[in-house]
Amino acid sequence: MNFFFSLLLTFHQAALESFGSSAVLSPRLSFADAFAAVQHNETDYAVIPFENSTNGSVVQTLDLLADRDGLYSDVVVCGEYYLTVHHCLLTRKNAVPSADGSYRFITKLYSHPQAWGQCERFLSKHFKNVERQDVSSTSKAAEIVSAEETGHSAAIASRFAAEYHGADILAANIEDRADNTTRFLIVKNIRSKRTGCAHRTSDAMDMEESQTARWKTLISFMINHSSPGALADALLIFKAHGMNLTSINSRPSRIRAWQYIFFVECERVPGVHDDDVMERILEGLRKVTESCRNLGSWKDRLIHEV
Amino acid sequence: MNFFFSLLLTFHQAALESFGSSAVLSPRLSFADAFAAVQHNETDYAVIPFENSTNGSVVQTLDLLADRDGLYSDVVVCGEYYLTVHHCLLTRKNAVPSADGSYRFITKLYSHPQAWGQCERFLSKHFKNVERQDVSSTSKAAEIVSAEETGHSAAIASRFAAEYHGADILAANIEDRADNTTRFLIVKNIRSKRTGCAHRTSDAMDMEESQTARWKTLISFMINHSSPGALADALLIFKAHGMNLTSINSRPSRIRAWQYIFFVECERVPGVHDDDVMERILEGLRKVTESCRNLGSWKDRLIHEV
Repeated sequence: MNFFFSLLLTFHQAALESFGSSAVLSPRLSFADAFAAVQHNETDYAVIPFENSTNGSVVQTLDLLADRDGLYSDVVVCGEYYLTVHHCLLTRKNAVPSADGSYRFITKLYSHPQAWGQCERFLSKHFKNVERQDVSSTSKAAEIVSAEETGHSAAIASRFAAEYHGADILAANIEDRADNTTRFLIVKNIRSKRTGCAHRTSDAMDMEESQTARWKTLISFMINHSSPGALADALLIFKAHGMNLTSINSRPSRIRAWQYIFFVECERVPGVHDDDVMERILEGLRKVTESCRNLGSWKDRLIHEV
Repeated sequence: MNFFFSLLLTFHQAALESFGSSAVLSPRLSFADAFAAVQHNETDYAVIPFENSTNGSVVQTLDLLADRDGLYSDVVVCGEYYLTVHHCLLTRKNAVPSADGSYRFITKLYSHPQAWGQCERFLSKHFKNVERQDVSSTSKAAEIVSAEETGHSAAIASRFAAEYHGADILAANIEDRADNTTRFLIVKNIRSKRTGCAHRTSDAMDMEESQTARWKTLISFMINHSSPGALADALLIFKAHGMNLTSINSRPSRIRAWQYIFFVECERVPGVHDDDVMERILEGLRKVTESCRNLGSWKDRLIHEV
């Protein structure tokens, strides 16, 4: 169980921060289990990583949202949360460092594949020819090096994981970009009586905020790939309604090789777009796509620079 | 060195099949090293995995093509190669199986993260609660289990890797889809005197083929994200010239969080499109994008169903 518990340390932090400490957190073994728990009303919400500002989309989450086998037909996105991610270089407590204070005593690194991508500059400066071992989570990496007898291995993981596993921090904030942020999506069951995703705010505040807040919507669709411009036609519908796209992703359809399912996220701005703009966009999309699904709308939590 | 050598077994196979056995193969330690070797004219071509039909894009390759630091300004795509990928379940030679012939004696699995995604059905049927260890390549996984004393671990890897490391194959073709295929891109230096990418065909044949062959082009660009419909405007240019898009991908720009670099691949069909259609598309793109790069054109090698 340790494996899955440690996987959750990061999401634990995101869930705590977005729902506050009064929420009952119920860990699940995998992203798929969290989606299933929402579909079967075993939990009110699930918090799932969607993309990282340095390293891009989380494909496992896109694959769950693609829902190719129709297992999660009631799961919709109802919120988002941005978590700034800082990485540290850790070793086991009281490991013996090199006499010159360098990292030369470290002969092996452990981390999650996403973390390598977020710390490329630090790693290529200090660990160019050092073996890297992928593990299931950064926290698992911290656990492994904490238990290591030789003290010659190090992990890339969070401060939270270092403290949890009692590891020493050799270097902090080693990520390439100070604005390294992971965006989490909050999903709920569409049939749930809970209105919206009132995390950390009272319903009254939500009502007030919703007058001015930007709303994002996520839509998945498939197009006829043999028709020239089919994707452009679909995207034109957003443009025709003056909607900006905030992200676009694609994953294999798995119906036929080299066919894709697209994910488009767009943003409605009060005062600029009508209240029913999304309904009209979906109506238009149904005419030019082979299939199309509204995966939910939620309040934009990104702080927009003016 | 073993680590990097084993990484190359799959690409070795793709390179051998696309260039034939007379080509001199020169392994590189990473995709980035292969790009650098082409940029510095240390090799004529490099063979790099681009996408898998089941599991989607190879983000490391997209990041190299994004070339955010301008390290590979002379690297262009000049060809593609499709390799059908079959996976096997391997253990060390003469491992002791369960009395009932089941896989219950296996308590740990090793493979590359891409392979888990390609064998999901087999794994969820037979190995639902078995620990999975990510390693750097499927061949590395085969190497680890071949050397394992207990015989209680198994690897997901190719038949080629099983034979190379002397492992036993317990189950073959365990991939979810029989058409599981990886597409490789062949890149060269734009200043190289070699015309096109005459792999496995004589130049004479190439000339003849080029009259009827479809040609693909890969273009990367960045847009002004604050302008509604900027992406639709860019894609409209392809549509206006009747060009079909064969893939679209995005990666973080790493200039500013939540800004992306887009990769669009399109296809020119002789008799349908003019010879200079790509030049006109690029001209149009330069007007509506912040930056735009032609990453090369090559003959479509996909067998199109009629």
